[in-house]
Amino acid sequence: MYDLVIRGGSVVTPDGVLSTDVGIFGEKIAALGNALEGREMIDAAGKLVFPGVIDPHVHFALPVGGSVSSDDFYSGSVAAACGGVTSVIDFTVGSSDSSIPDDIRNRLEDAKNAVVDYSFHGEVVGWRPGRVDEMNEAIGLGVKSFKFFTAYGASGRRTDTGPLLQAFQALADMDGVAVVHAEDDSMIETFSGLLSNEEWGRMESVAKVRPDVCEASAVNTVGWLAARTGVQCHIVHLSSALGLEEALYARERGADLTVETCPQYLLLTSDVYKSPEGHLYSAAPALRSSDDNAVLWNALASGEIDFAATDHCPFTRTQKEWKGAFDRLPGGLPGVELLLPLLYSEGVLRGRLPLCELARITSERAAKRYGLYPRKGSLLPGSDADIVLFDPEEVWHVQAGALRMNVDFSPYENLELIGKTWQTISRGEIIYSEGRFLGKKGRGVFLHR
Amino acid sequence: MYDLVIRGGSVVTPDGVLSTDVGIFGEKIAALGNALEGREMIDAAGKLVFPGVIDPHVHFALPVGGSVSSDDFYSGSVAAACGGVTSVIDFTVGSSDSSIPDDIRNRLEDAKNAVVDYSFHGEVVGWRPGRVDEMNEAIGLGVKSFKFFTAYGASGRRTDTGPLLQAFQALADMDGVAVVHAEDDSMIETFSGLLSNEEWGRMESVAKVRPDVCEASAVNTVGWLAARTGVQCHIVHLSSALGLEEALYARERGADLTVETCPQYLLLTSDVYKSPEGHLYSAAPALRSSDDNAVLWNALASGEIDFAATDHCPFTRTQKEWKGAFDRLPGGLPGVELLLPLLYSEGVLRGRLPLCELARITSERAAKRYGLYPRKGSLLPGSDADIVLFDPEEVWHVQAGALRMNVDFSPYENLELIGKTWQTISRGEIIYSEGRFLGKKGRGVFLHR
Amino acid sequence: MYDLVIRGGSVVTPDGVLSTDVGIFGEKIAALGNALEGREMIDAAGKLVFPGVIDPHVHFALPVGGSVSSDDFYSGSVAAACGGVTSVIDFTVGSSDSSIPDDIRNRLEDAKNAVVDYSFHGEVVGWRPGRVDEMNEAIGLGVKSFKFFTAYGASGRRTDTGPLLQAFQALADMDGVAVVHAEDDSMIETFSGLLSNEEWGRMESVAKVRPDVCEASAVNTVGWLAARTGVQCHIVHLSSALGLEEALYARERGADLTVETCPQYLLLTSDVYKSPEGHLYSAAPALRSSDDNAVLWNALASGEIDFAATDHCPFTRTQKEWKGAFDRLPGGLPGVELLLPLLYSEGVLRGRLPLCELARITSERAAKRYGLYPRKGSLLPGSDADIVLFDPEEVWHVQAGALRMNVDFSPYENLELIGKTWQTISRGEIIYSEGRFLGKKGRGVFLHR
Amino acid sequence: MYDLVIRGGSVVTPDGVLSTDVGIFGEKIAALGNALEGREMIDAAGKLVFPGVIDPHVHFALPVGGSVSSDDFYSGSVAAACGGVTSVIDFTVGSSDSSIPDDIRNRLEDAKNAVVDYSFHGEVVGWRPGRVDEMNEAIGLGVKSFKFFTAYGASGRRTDTGPLLQAFQALADMDGVAVVHAEDDSMIETFSGLLSNEEWGRMESVAKVRPDVCEASAVNTVGWLAARTGVQCHIVHLSSALGLEEALYARERGADLTVETCPQYLLLTSDVYKSPEGHLYSAAPALRSSDDNAVLWNALASGEIDFAATDHCPFTRTQKEWKGAFDRLPGGLPGVELLLPLLYSEGVLRGRLPLCELARITSERAAKRYGLYPRKGSLLPGSDADIVLFDPEEVWHVQAGALRMNVDFSPYENLELIGKTWQTISRGEIIYSEGRFLGKKGRGVFLHR
Repeated sequence: MYDLVIRGGSVVTPDGVLSTDVGIFGEKIAALGNALEGREMIDAAGKLVFPGVIDPHVHFALPVGGSVSSDDFYSGSVAAACGGVTSVIDFTVGSSDSSIPDDIRNRLEDAKNAVVDYSFHGEVVGWRPGRVDEMNEAIGLGVKSFKFFTAYGASGRRTDTGPLLQAFQALADMDGVAVVHAEDDSMIETFSGLLSNEEWGRMESVAKVRPDVCEASAVNTVGWLAARTGVQCHIVHLSSALGLEEALYARERGADLTVETCPQYLLLTSDVYKSPEGHLYSAAPALRSSDDNAVLWNALASGEIDFAATDHCPFTRTQKEWKGAFDRLPGGLPGVELLLPLLYSEGVLRGRLPLCELARITSERAAKRYGLYPRKGSLLPGSDADIVLFDPEEVWHVQAGALRMNVDFSPYENLELIGKTWQTISRGEIIYSEGRFLGKKGRGVFLHR
Repeated sequence: MYDLVIRGGSVVTPDGVLSTDVGIFGEKIAALGNALEGREMIDAAGKLVFPGVIDPHVHFALPVGGSVSSDDFYSGSVAAACGGVTSVIDFTVGSSDSSIPDDIRNRLEDAKNAVVDYSFHGEVVGWRPGRVDEMNEAIGLGVKSFKFFTAYGASGRRTDTGPLLQAFQALADMDGVAVVHAEDDSMIETFSGLLSNEEWGRMESVAKVRPDVCEASAVNTVGWLAARTGVQCHIVHLSSALGLEEALYARERGADLTVETCPQYLLLTSDVYKSPEGHLYSAAPALRSSDDNAVLWNALASGEIDFAATDHCPFTRTQKEWKGAFDRLPGGLPGVELLLPLLYSEGVLRGRLPLCELARITSERAAKRYGLYPRKGSLLPGSDADIVLFDPEEVWHVQAGALRMNVDFSPYENLELIGKTWQTISRGEIIYSEGRFLGKKGRGVFLHR
Repeated sequence: MYDLVIRGGSVVTPDGVLSTDVGIFGEKIAALGNALEGREMIDAAGKLVFPGVIDPHVHFALPVGGSVSSDDFYSGSVAAACGGVTSVIDFTVGSSDSSIPDDIRNRLEDAKNAVVDYSFHGEVVGWRPGRVDEMNEAIGLGVKSFKFFTAYGASGRRTDTGPLLQAFQALADMDGVAVVHAEDDSMIETFSGLLSNEEWGRMESVAKVRPDVCEASAVNTVGWLAARTGVQCHIVHLSSALGLEEALYARERGADLTVETCPQYLLLTSDVYKSPEGHLYSAAPALRSSDDNAVLWNALASGEIDFAATDHCPFTRTQKEWKGAFDRLPGGLPGVELLLPLLYSEGVLRGRLPLCELARITSERAAKRYGLYPRKGSLLPGSDADIVLFDPEEVWHVQAGALRMNVDFSPYENLELIGKTWQTISRGEIIYSEGRFLGKKGRGVFLHR
Repeated sequence: MYDLVIRGGSVVTPDGVLSTDVGIFGEKIAALGNALEGREMIDAAGKLVFPGVIDPHVHFALPVGGSVSSDDFYSGSVAAACGGVTSVIDFTVGSSDSSIPDDIRNRLEDAKNAVVDYSFHGEVVGWRPGRVDEMNEAIGLGVKSFKFFTAYGASGRRTDTGPLLQAFQALADMDGVAVVHAEDDSMIETFSGLLSNEEWGRMESVAKVRPDVCEASAVNTVGWLAARTGVQCHIVHLSSALGLEEALYARERGADLTVETCPQYLLLTSDVYKSPEGHLYSAAPALRSSDDNAVLWNALASGEIDFAATDHCPFTRTQKEWKGAFDRLPGGLPGVELLLPLLYSEGVLRGRLPLCELARITSERAAKRYGLYPRKGSLLPGSDADIVLFDPEEVWHVQAGALRMNVDFSPYENLELIGKTWQTISRGEIIYSEGRFLGKKGRGVFLHR
């Protein structure tokens, strides 16, 4: 007699779709099997049963140039839960003055109201040799991945090759993961320097100053450093075919390099910048072409791209008010609530992704990369009972106003989707069911990795 | 309430070792979970629970030059069961006169006493364009893989590049698998032509006439054809580092090429030919060096070699009586009963293989390659309840006389092994337990693929 | 005061076009310089001065199935001289019965009337271990390259991989060159077996039974053996893009592999087979597509293909009379007289080849590959005074009847060419001048390499 | 009757060694031939005749941190002439304030006393978009190669990836050559930051702050940019096996990348830093290990490294006085006078370089890369009569005091060399003969490329 049994669903795993019940005891999956009996029973006939989605790249309450991203850990994690996301990995807010362990302690405070489980990547801003000790201490605190930027030199966030080499070597020794935002800062500066005043005043110029070659150049450099040092290295939000080519090349040369992409790079193109609301799409990297979209879909399906993330970083229309130049906008797009529905409707149903691969793309591989597996990322007995029950037939339309994310804009407004999260279970607790969020504020726990 | 529950074992899957019970209902795995209840319970505390081993390369009752391999389908499959093997893939006995479908019907007759499940590779001897239709018909009969030899021209079994091209193209179209014994016939003939009379009289000359370059040359040719045609292609009994290099090269060029190796190529070297009993080791390909052993272990662990098989083809000491020249011996070695214990004791315990990989190497990958998955090769609910309970601590010594294989010789005589098959379950039935075979003659079923 | 001075021409070398006189003393080039004075002066103003062309692949007086190619060494070498060819490499006529040294002695007899210098490739037909000693002896006789066929099994000329391995290893040790006709015999047989009676009766079927994959397969095999053994290996008459791909691949793997192509594979396509005179084009390999033509031109210009040859092997219309099936024709095309004009007019003038490359393609590289350099293949002082004076402006039309080759057919009949050989100098002697052959029968010498 | 004839020498060309006289008329080579007659005759029996050496990387009168390299264009070019160097390529002295065309005009003034021919690479310091126009104008002035630094950020000479991309694209369009000093600035800074005070005080620390990984990282980046843009790109003074690996990799990816190395990286190791005079060896890149030496020799012989240069940049013992820290020294080593003797004695005579390759390494390839061919780099008629007569048997010892370079230190002091420049001819004029410099100040001409 289990505490909770999900009966009759189609259980989606990377190895196949199983017709089996799922038995839950306490916070854990206790059984896969047929005819399981539970004190509480969920009739999942006709439903898809996914492992709880892991969004390994979100930015809740992120301070950006005087503003703060509009979802805090509570609203953001509620939205996550409503979309089927049961774990998020956010980032500490680094600075050249603070220490990484302190950043972690501060961020734990920020996160205390979260309703799904969470972890952090430790953001590294401003290198100094002492950062090595800080990273070591951070690992003791349960944070084993660290975020580096190759761009944003103007704001001091760029880490150049020398510090990257030192950091990567240290992380290779301590079994940490280097997480890299890969855009070539110098190229962005150079392209920016070529803009006319008029071009500064047009949103579409963002694609001119951050073209795909910027990403490719940075991936080449980072991939080379990864191959040299043997570090576990991860490229976030890969956006372009050209960047992908470099990532594959780095692997050929021996780099232990994983890659993520985001729905916006699979579904949107730089054409949106020209629309009246183009400025609302401000984010880096820039959106690319439909050819890039296609290449990324293929790579996601084949496993060349390891997993998906949202880079969720919402700003309201007010926050994104146009101030005359595309570089005066906070950058970021909302997304955590839509990760699974978008990949299902636009990916699986359009023949771009095999169904089984969704379990890998949205859960297993991120869990393995970031040290959460098999606690997260698996539906086998012993894993946390983080489960999404997904209705593959519900037809609906994206409307920012109807979503839980705290933002009055969606890049996918009015897009018709087929398939929707029906129930979300986190550590054995049904926290979302058919439109209603049921969890308690602060119920999420920090995932010590 | 399940029919049978395996309680408290460590369940070995490619994704990890789970502490979970296994519930069986009828012939199927019905549940993985804790505290499962069954009408019959097996206390597996301290035991490893593997998916039933698949030996995808055995030769029971194989007619070879007037002789017949000494295990028939009954004795051979009993030995298999006692070693933890729950599925075998044997071969039809092809000839230039007969048709492949007739060969299958005949072989089904031979196999009717088998006690574990079985399938066949359709042996193709003597090409003619009509073979394409025969292969098509064979697939309808449940046989989707076909065996080709690049060697053995003297006995008419060699298939040259022209027919291979035609066959591979046809198989690519019909989604079949080309299974190839890869040794360069012409090189073997050439090296044979260089032997002195005295050398013909020495067993160790087998290594001179079938050196590793013979294997590498054939793998190059077959790999190239595979890349050209896109066929699913499999190289059996890979024996050498040089051959492996070619297989990897073919994959780089786009070939869908899988590879198996056998315990004899992992554990034995050509030194044994010089021993007084050297002639008992006659088999092709020849045994290699300890360097080759090491390369093959590494490749097996890394997944470059997909799975293991035994090429089980036993002959008794009488059958292998020395008749003055190494080429007058039937070729083949016994092995089906020892596959799992050898890989566990010599592989896992010596640090050459991660434990989880055993589930892949001995079961999952062969099932996937040959169209048996997920019916076989998996422990997830819905799969056949083919399970090995393995005692990782039993210490024993290989002795031909104490094994069930019908042969008075073992290549591993007196080798101390740690770990032994404790119970074997086939489709829910315990057919072997602690030294006793419990199954009924003929209980094995033909696996229609 | 030189014996002969060529004044005022444009001297074409692989490194550039020089405005310089050429001074000849006796049989040697004695000087490059301006204002040279000679007892005899040639005014070469407006002419191109090429190093004497080397045709490294001709078949004079070749016995083929009861017939003999229609140029003997006299008529063939006269035609060569008239076209600017000052050295030819023909082949011994091998057989399984004769020894290579005897073949050489016999062929020296055949060649005694030649009017340009000549060498032989030693044809190897019917392997036996003793061939190694024969090859060694042949090298002592001045023949260091040996011809092997992977095709023509039916007539006993195919050499399979085992003998090739042995031969290549031996040649690598003795610094010889393996020259290979690369077509996959088994594939040709297989494709032949698929022809209907009606197809046997159509010339164009030759392209069906010898498609490009036959060449590619053989180049793969030969290239692999070359890489394994380290032998200097040369592929004759490469005809296809697919074959080229394999040659490049073999080089990547370390093979010391050179390649030649012929004008027919650069200029003709299999469309000619369908013409009423299609049967006159019988030769192996078969003609390909215009895409193949283009790929081969590019490779010739870039140096991926090392040099050009003609595979000159003429048969008269009578000899090529249609006997009802395409396989009842002697195979071979005339060409030695047209090598330079075709490459100049169709290559250089059409922008497919840089002018300087002609010196490499028609002379230097073959000389280097076959051990004739710097005696042949160079215009530097010390080299044999083998020189072509070429009129780059003469416009003419190919007409078999007006050429010196002893054959009443040309594959290029009526083709308009710009540029024609004006004078040919062989070892200091003007042997051809403006339409007249001036040399003495038998003046050619055997080139001991 | 030529003006000058070199009789009886062994003429060394990339294609072979010729026994031929060389006839000179005015400033040009007029003939290669035997028994040439000249108004003036040089008996070169027993001498090697090389094309005049091109040193494509020298720094005469280079201002470095308050000091100036101790050879001006007069003394430096006299030393060059005495060593067999007949052309040098120096650099303009760039700055962020000046324009490249002005830099050229200024440098032409500096160079007016040169006694051998000279050209400049245009140094690019401080990028701005207008530099593209300046480069275009510079090409009109005869300067088609431009020097970039990836290092020396502290002094403003580093050009980052953005400007490099823009510059490379522009140069690809205008057929210019990008010449790059490739060391990773950020890595040097990072390694510097790790030094203790005591380490700053030790010369050998230079190897710690500029290890081979710095070079490799920069070559990776530059090679990638070269492959992307298609520019002709050249890496100066390659010093390490690791750097070479990256250069080869970039070529595989399609970069048109050439490489030079210098005698100091072939012959010296970082061990010299520990000697009492270690500080005199200050230069960048740093010296490496004997393993690196060996790899570079091999690559030079095989052509993987295209040519040699000296990076001649001498400073006197007074200028290099030790001021307590290795970074307070001007960097640079003398060398122009020794390029040919070192490569001959340490390269050819020790079996590391084939003799013919010297003509490529010291002359032909640099001429081709930098647009000087065939005016320079060739001994064929029509080329400038720049010729070195080299006595291959003279035994001597390097002594700074006995050399013409204006510096009281030699990295090779007391090294015994076999072979010495005997006479140097520049544009037909004997400017050096057996110890005496014979040329007139200012006789060198600017080489408009």
